[in-house]
Amino acid sequence: MALLVQKFGGTSVGSVERINAVADRLLRYRGQGHDLVVVVSAMSGETNRLVALAAELNPDAPAREVDVLLSTGEQVTIALLSMALHRRGQDARSYTGAQVNILTDNVHGKARILSIDDQRVRKDLAAGRIVVVAGFQGVDDQGDITTLGRGGSDTTAVAMAAALKADECQIFTDVDGVYTTDPRIVPKARRLDRITSEEMLEMSSLGAKVLQIRAVEFAGKYKVPLRVLSSFEEGQGTLISYDEEKDMEQPLISGIAFERDEAKVTIMGVPDQPGVAHRILGPIADAHINVDMIVQNVGGDDTTDLTFTVHRDDCKRALQFLEAIARELKARAVKSDDHVVKLSVVGVGMRSHAGVANTMFKTLAEEGINIQMISTSEIKISVVIEEKYLELAVRSLHSAFGLEGQPEDL
Amino acid sequence: MALLVQKFGGTSVGSVERINAVADRLLRYRGQGHDLVVVVSAMSGETNRLVALAAELNPDAPAREVDVLLSTGEQVTIALLSMALHRRGQDARSYTGAQVNILTDNVHGKARILSIDDQRVRKDLAAGRIVVVAGFQGVDDQGDITTLGRGGSDTTAVAMAAALKADECQIFTDVDGVYTTDPRIVPKARRLDRITSEEMLEMSSLGAKVLQIRAVEFAGKYKVPLRVLSSFEEGQGTLISYDEEKDMEQPLISGIAFERDEAKVTIMGVPDQPGVAHRILGPIADAHINVDMIVQNVGGDDTTDLTFTVHRDDCKRALQFLEAIARELKARAVKSDDHVVKLSVVGVGMRSHAGVANTMFKTLAEEGINIQMISTSEIKISVVIEEKYLELAVRSLHSAFGLEGQPEDL
Repeated sequence: MALLVQKFGGTSVGSVERINAVADRLLRYRGQGHDLVVVVSAMSGETNRLVALAAELNPDAPAREVDVLLSTGEQVTIALLSMALHRRGQDARSYTGAQVNILTDNVHGKARILSIDDQRVRKDLAAGRIVVVAGFQGVDDQGDITTLGRGGSDTTAVAMAAALKADECQIFTDVDGVYTTDPRIVPKARRLDRITSEEMLEMSSLGAKVLQIRAVEFAGKYKVPLRVLSSFEEGQGTLISYDEEKDMEQPLISGIAFERDEAKVTIMGVPDQPGVAHRILGPIADAHINVDMIVQNVGGDDTTDLTFTVHRDDCKRALQFLEAIARELKARAVKSDDHVVKLSVVGVGMRSHAGVANTMFKTLAEEGINIQMISTSEIKISVVIEEKYLELAVRSLHSAFGLEGQPEDL
Repeated sequence: MALLVQKFGGTSVGSVERINAVADRLLRYRGQGHDLVVVVSAMSGETNRLVALAAELNPDAPAREVDVLLSTGEQVTIALLSMALHRRGQDARSYTGAQVNILTDNVHGKARILSIDDQRVRKDLAAGRIVVVAGFQGVDDQGDITTLGRGGSDTTAVAMAAALKADECQIFTDVDGVYTTDPRIVPKARRLDRITSEEMLEMSSLGAKVLQIRAVEFAGKYKVPLRVLSSFEEGQGTLISYDEEKDMEQPLISGIAFERDEAKVTIMGVPDQPGVAHRILGPIADAHINVDMIVQNVGGDDTTDLTFTVHRDDCKRALQFLEAIARELKARAVKSDDHVVKLSVVGVGMRSHAGVANTMFKTLAEEGINIQMISTSEIKISVVIEEKYLELAVRSLHSAFGLEGQPEDL
């Protein structure tokens, strides 16, 4: 007997058959005595259909009206899922974001949740109903409909779980949990039963795109136990925990994450003066180019080299800015490489253990893989390497850190 | 410079092209200096698509959830129309029923409007915006979404016009006004510039299905000037008036209405006692069979014959009930005829003029058409005749009452 908030994404509710499958599944959970609040996305394809209609009428449609339009997608799903539950003799009530007062700021298209009114939901739960809530949407203090942006339904689910102090927030996706690395590269990759939220943040920002970063951050802030499970198979999935005691039992390394499609840009021989990094990176940020890793080395001749990575698609644009800046700063040269990837080992365990970096560098060296950049945080070591070595590097590290079986104790 | 509430139905906004055409038209009205509140329906086909989805998941879906589902249809249209207006440099805001607080009772699927909050709309109008409101939908005092039932968007428009004390409520449809009769039967049928609301009520309930009865009643209650116009052509349309002074200038007869698909059911030789009509018609009403005309004749032998008309589809079912009642009441016989039609002449002028009935009966007699039932009200005379004579009767009456040109003065 627990209070569970469960979120099903667009693929999980993408057809009448799938909605029926979700309803069957909910009934099984209900049969185990759980109270259920279900957050759903728009049926897959629906949002694209609406966006195409809008684009035909106005390629530069006002964000307020786009939100009015897109929010209908989830509203359709909540009604249909409720109907499917009633069909099975299960009382259920659907609510739009506005109806449960998911109050947000007024930044249409990427609004942030401020508060939720849980009164009505609690009454329904007490009456034995399953509550079905539209994900991705809210309402601002003027009563205008807002949407939360990409992956917003995950955030809705976490926010509902926080407001209701739910026992667990369960995100059903097309994978059955978080893996030590991508199983397409390492077939022996292992599903993690448990991962800390900090590790999850590093993993998801690095390419294991199971959950939206915002949802994980939000869950961390309110200490909502978050679980990732498969929509299509049974299983325990992966629990994202905030429990410091249990964190200590975590293995040294939880996983190997990577990011393809990186590009590396370097400006060399810049006079080593205060404010130089800002003068270089300011215009890049102003151009809305996301910069990922930044590494600066100071040489002996009063100049410095600064290297950073951007998404491969932004490489050309970044170079243009950089060449202008280089002329201004009288830098020696600018160069780039768009055949690189980023690779990271992630684990809270490395906080209290030395030697992780060493194992990583040694493993890569043994495979003859050159490390181009290094960047470290408390629970992560990232390197940039040549693209063609990605698979080899991931497999070697996965094995070196013993991720197939029990974690190696270094 | 007037405040106009304009309603465009599903066909008028049924595609991107049509929405653009509506936007162009609104800009012309705006260019004339009018303040505009626009009420729109779901794009044609959309409601059917949603109903089909619901039917697949639950053929007996709860009415509350059906309303959550169907109300998305208009929400899509308001957003798209607002976008089209913005594209043309015209500021506009869309509102769902809930957002302008169209408060209704909680009878899902056929809710009645109780009140509207006009504050927000007035502010937008003052700021020069066109306000776009979702028709057909409202919200009950629990915050649950309701829908108003068939033709509900007309009712929304009239209610908005009443709340805002608009100068006129204009209903754009696929016809260019109310005609003296169906132009498919009488090519010379004439568009009426003006019709009283009472006549309109009789006309619309009798088959000239231009406007929903509820909208006309509602407009009458709040004295909202209501105009029917074509979505696709320019023109003045037909104004439905509530101005008693001007009513007096109305022609004797405004039009000839008719209802196909009628059936006539008779129970003969019923003991003529108090309560007999109730005993006969009570079970029919309980079975949700709509009874239209009712005629009772008292004979000389302490028995009576009672005849009523129902929709042809209900004829068999009505007969079954009637046969059971006939046995109970020891009536002499039950018979039916499902090849009849109803024909009515409508006009407020007949209040103050005798001879209308006589002209009607004489005209039908001259054509050899037998009258099977007669029923009269202050502004209407209805007869039931054999189906095959419908077109002949309508043409003869249209001519006899001089409806092609100026009304004849009898």
